[in-house]
Amino acid sequence: MRFFSDNAAAACPEVLAAIASANRLDTAYDGDAWSKRLNGAFSELFGTGVEALWVATGTAANSLALAALCPPHGSIVCHRDAHIQTDECGAPEFYTHGAKLLLGEGEGAKLTPETVTALLATVRDDVHQVQPHVLSITNASEYGCVYTPDETAALGDLAKARGLGFHLDGARFANAVARLGCSPAELSWRAGVDALSFGFTKNGGLSAECLIFFDRSLAAATHYRRKRAGHLLSKGRYLAAQILAMLEDGIWLRNARAANAAATRLAEAAGGERLLLPVEANEVFIRVSADEAAALRGQGFDFYDWGPGEARLVTSWDSDPADVDALAAAIRAL
Amino acid sequence: MRFFSDNAAAACPEVLAAIASANRLDTAYDGDAWSKRLNGAFSELFGTGVEALWVATGTAANSLALAALCPPHGSIVCHRDAHIQTDECGAPEFYTHGAKLLLGEGEGAKLTPETVTALLATVRDDVHQVQPHVLSITNASEYGCVYTPDETAALGDLAKARGLGFHLDGARFANAVARLGCSPAELSWRAGVDALSFGFTKNGGLSAECLIFFDRSLAAATHYRRKRAGHLLSKGRYLAAQILAMLEDGIWLRNARAANAAATRLAEAAGGERLLLPVEANEVFIRVSADEAAALRGQGFDFYDWGPGEARLVTSWDSDPADVDALAAAIRAL
Amino acid sequence: MRFFSDNAAAACPEVLAAIASANRLDTAYDGDAWSKRLNGAFSELFGTGVEALWVATGTAANSLALAALCPPHGSIVCHRDAHIQTDECGAPEFYTHGAKLLLGEGEGAKLTPETVTALLATVRDDVHQVQPHVLSITNASEYGCVYTPDETAALGDLAKARGLGFHLDGARFANAVARLGCSPAELSWRAGVDALSFGFTKNGGLSAECLIFFDRSLAAATHYRRKRAGHLLSKGRYLAAQILAMLEDGIWLRNARAANAAATRLAEAAGGERLLLPVEANEVFIRVSADEAAALRGQGFDFYDWGPGEARLVTSWDSDPADVDALAAAIRAL
Amino acid sequence: MRFFSDNAAAACPEVLAAIASANRLDTAYDGDAWSKRLNGAFSELFGTGVEALWVATGTAANSLALAALCPPHGSIVCHRDAHIQTDECGAPEFYTHGAKLLLGEGEGAKLTPETVTALLATVRDDVHQVQPHVLSITNASEYGCVYTPDETAALGDLAKARGLGFHLDGARFANAVARLGCSPAELSWRAGVDALSFGFTKNGGLSAECLIFFDRSLAAATHYRRKRAGHLLSKGRYLAAQILAMLEDGIWLRNARAANAAATRLAEAAGGERLLLPVEANEVFIRVSADEAAALRGQGFDFYDWGPGEARLVTSWDSDPADVDALAAAIRAL
Repeated sequence: MRFFSDNAAAACPEVLAAIASANRLDTAYDGDAWSKRLNGAFSELFGTGVEALWVATGTAANSLALAALCPPHGSIVCHRDAHIQTDECGAPEFYTHGAKLLLGEGEGAKLTPETVTALLATVRDDVHQVQPHVLSITNASEYGCVYTPDETAALGDLAKARGLGFHLDGARFANAVARLGCSPAELSWRAGVDALSFGFTKNGGLSAECLIFFDRSLAAATHYRRKRAGHLLSKGRYLAAQILAMLEDGIWLRNARAANAAATRLAEAAGGERLLLPVEANEVFIRVSADEAAALRGQGFDFYDWGPGEARLVTSWDSDPADVDALAAAIRAL
Repeated sequence: MRFFSDNAAAACPEVLAAIASANRLDTAYDGDAWSKRLNGAFSELFGTGVEALWVATGTAANSLALAALCPPHGSIVCHRDAHIQTDECGAPEFYTHGAKLLLGEGEGAKLTPETVTALLATVRDDVHQVQPHVLSITNASEYGCVYTPDETAALGDLAKARGLGFHLDGARFANAVARLGCSPAELSWRAGVDALSFGFTKNGGLSAECLIFFDRSLAAATHYRRKRAGHLLSKGRYLAAQILAMLEDGIWLRNARAANAAATRLAEAAGGERLLLPVEANEVFIRVSADEAAALRGQGFDFYDWGPGEARLVTSWDSDPADVDALAAAIRAL
Repeated sequence: MRFFSDNAAAACPEVLAAIASANRLDTAYDGDAWSKRLNGAFSELFGTGVEALWVATGTAANSLALAALCPPHGSIVCHRDAHIQTDECGAPEFYTHGAKLLLGEGEGAKLTPETVTALLATVRDDVHQVQPHVLSITNASEYGCVYTPDETAALGDLAKARGLGFHLDGARFANAVARLGCSPAELSWRAGVDALSFGFTKNGGLSAECLIFFDRSLAAATHYRRKRAGHLLSKGRYLAAQILAMLEDGIWLRNARAANAAATRLAEAAGGERLLLPVEANEVFIRVSADEAAALRGQGFDFYDWGPGEARLVTSWDSDPADVDALAAAIRAL
Repeated sequence: MRFFSDNAAAACPEVLAAIASANRLDTAYDGDAWSKRLNGAFSELFGTGVEALWVATGTAANSLALAALCPPHGSIVCHRDAHIQTDECGAPEFYTHGAKLLLGEGEGAKLTPETVTALLATVRDDVHQVQPHVLSITNASEYGCVYTPDETAALGDLAKARGLGFHLDGARFANAVARLGCSPAELSWRAGVDALSFGFTKNGGLSAECLIFFDRSLAAATHYRRKRAGHLLSKGRYLAAQILAMLEDGIWLRNARAANAAATRLAEAAGGERLLLPVEANEVFIRVSADEAAALRGQGFDFYDWGPGEARLVTSWDSDPADVDALAAAIRAL
């Protein structure tokens, strides 16, 4: 019973079916019928005109977004625990040709206007220091917390006031939308987001992410950068088909709700003291002693240790309800 | 009836079946059961110990190979018509951080020891010029011609003598092996190749290429570069499963033979004068007047114009025999 | 008696005097009194508002200019013999983060609208190829030939029509202006040039070049790039003082005229058949047999062999008239 | 009376004399008589064989050293206040093609084995994180503190044990040696340093720094990188001559001692409570109220505010003793 990560889960049946249905000759790269429908599908979903480019990984989506927003001599404001800082092996630095990441603090891997303002104040406005060009946040965050539309908009306002582009790493955007019950627009362009890495892989895709440009002027150069990075797949229709399948029938929300619900069941089992953070998406961080962790593992539950005395439990769209119930019971029994 | 390119063909049934069979939770990235079998499977195929890294595109495979072999202040010797020069939007320059491509000539997009030697002679050995570090060839070439084991070995000997790494772009390596009836080893490490981009996508994969390091010391840094480039897919098992499915049952050769045979039928129909180049893989370049091209298109055949008065016809693993026969007949009838 | 290159000549007395006079405490970097006068001095010289940034080398000036004009996924159209291609060890690729150089042909290392148009026609307009963003020429050229104002403007018109930035490598700009007797404006912004690398080092400076932006919008980011490249010297006043000394008293033209005149004397001595190219600046390319070259060297003249049976003779602002006369006589006597 | 920085001071007479004496034709780049003497001069100074490359700025020296030691997918451990982090506009990121800086803490901008060990412990050893490749310290530090030979060697031992290259930013190396009275060897290669940026500009040079490789295997590629970065000056003899003049007559120590002594006089005037840090080189950090700072400025003393209630006073080789005495008296009188 694995609660390691949602990024190793199976693909959902609709995705496999979409791949099968796309399994015929069409135009290569993104000239096929599926890829051509992406702009329209996402424009409809967001209620505004967007450009949407598929890529195979979240790291690619994030890095292409950041390269579109930040020159090599600029910096990107993000949380110290942001995925772009801790888990992409310097991909943002590679794609931006050497921009710096300016690291902020905050509970739950979330930034606030205050912490961002404090960070910006550490930068002297002269040519000896790289100047901030982008604000990047992750929603749901790396610690399973969500930014509300208001929180996002407050950061968007700050970004605009300070001349920063605004990037949203949405590897678990679906979980945030599902949790908040708001519209995708409220968590993105209406809150000032210029570019969104919209994740589908963790949420039941096989391998599919979508980079959404609300500022469509950023898209043109990104088409070249995507090709140049080796991310223009020759049979792109298989990516586009996955995304369309998850979008068009609301599968993305159905899957995210299932993962969130499983995490909520675990959170309820853990209760107040044991929880490190509120559980707002599909990740649960709990306090466990070494003995307790061993006891859980002894019952067949796999998960990552986090800090000392901490564990991370991640649910996914297809977490087996029986497994979740078993883990919930085991936690209660600790 | 489309003869545009093999890179838009459907995936073969074995590949889809392999994806379906891999559709269950496993370890993320390349920690899964399928990915772990790659080194062994390719070591067996080549008869020597190799390291094998899956990636999603040939551009990524080529660029990672070149980055492993060439410093930013070096150059890569390749043919003027090499894919890395003409069709990757500067990906080699991106991954190598600015290396130069040194462009050679030769019939059929093939280099020879003589043309490479001539190219090398144009470089002064001082710090004002980038120095050559890699020789890169494509087999089968961009013009559907093959390098024999001897031709490859002659270039490998030259590379070794001149201190150059030796990269082989094998987007259509299967077609070359199928045509020549030799072992994969004879066309690669026995001929001095250090790194091979082994293509599966054009040959019936959905999206799967494999970077093979015969010089295994190059692999360690490449694992970081792959992640850093956003090419470490989180559900890598779907790539590995495709590759294994094509390798283990000889599917890769079966598919390549089918594509080659279809091209041969077209070549025979075209006959001597009409052929621009010998047809040795799955690409056919023919001389056609504008009227003739229009006539073919009028009968429902789609293909690319190449130079003026030239057309390119590409077959694939699943070219419909009836379509091929129809095109052959139409060419004969011109 | 050395006729190797002008880039190893002594600095002229006015330059040394200027350095001595700047040898006192002032604000660091480019905040000093001398540096602050550069924009004004060059704006006056060119008769239009410019931004002027000193750097220590022509390679840095060229590379910063190209980085300002070309994205990493773009290409730079230049002559096959351009200094940026043959003698800067890939500096343009380093500064632009991997742009490509697109190489043209032409007598005397000069491009024409026809050759540029032909080059541009080789590029497909799709994301698989890097797209041209800049045209770069050198005046006086690497072969000692000059572009007239009309020739420059014809290229400027083409650049504008095709959406290309226009860079002028002016390592020997002074020699071109001196030869043509035109205004600096006619050879630069009036002809459509966006950025000029204005050389002073070869022309009697100690170490000083100036990057001139006629399109001043390009300057802001370049200030960061210059620092980031380690080219913002902390005692920049010594560079600025050299440049001002050479500008303000017409020294730059006096020095260039002297070098040109010396070359002309050598050209007259060589006569028609022996000259490979017309001598229009301070470089003389002659046909000499191996025996003739040895004979000249036997008389104490040092110079570079060029191609087989060819030699390059370079004069400088301080070429000793007696040495020049001696070489002229020796050439006549061959 | 300016106490802003030593990097804007005049050049010392010996340096100007050396420039004048080098003002004659010689071989270009680093082929001249002066440049060729550098390896020998520094090998003698350090008592071991070294390779020495001149550059015009400390930023270039640091960045070339780091590029020699760190791959693009690596990280550089340094202090949060290191010049390479705070004052070079991302030059290390540019030259290394996107390496990350891993920032440590410590009084006086100094790292210790404990703080470095703690930093290294934050890095997971997997491909999702950039791995540390270099340790970089500054001696004298950015806060005017020195590392003793023992402190340096302890860090060198740690670096070696952890497989890190060891870089020393010696913009004020002379001040450290002068202060400690040790040999240059004890503060560098004997303590495990692989590459040293040896500063001359702040210490009385006009524009001259020297990159010293104790690990000489690092030098070969750096020659290309220096050219590629536009730092191979065509008249390099003027740089080499400055350095030799300062080395060969002990000028570098004489100048550093003078600057240190002036700082010590100011430190004595300030006394214990007012000093933020011990004064061990030529920088003095003092606590001053806004009124006190205004009072000093009212008497004609210029300096930088540092943090709130803090000021930085920098002396140089040519600080006027009368000015220093006047400032000392003014501080005492606060």
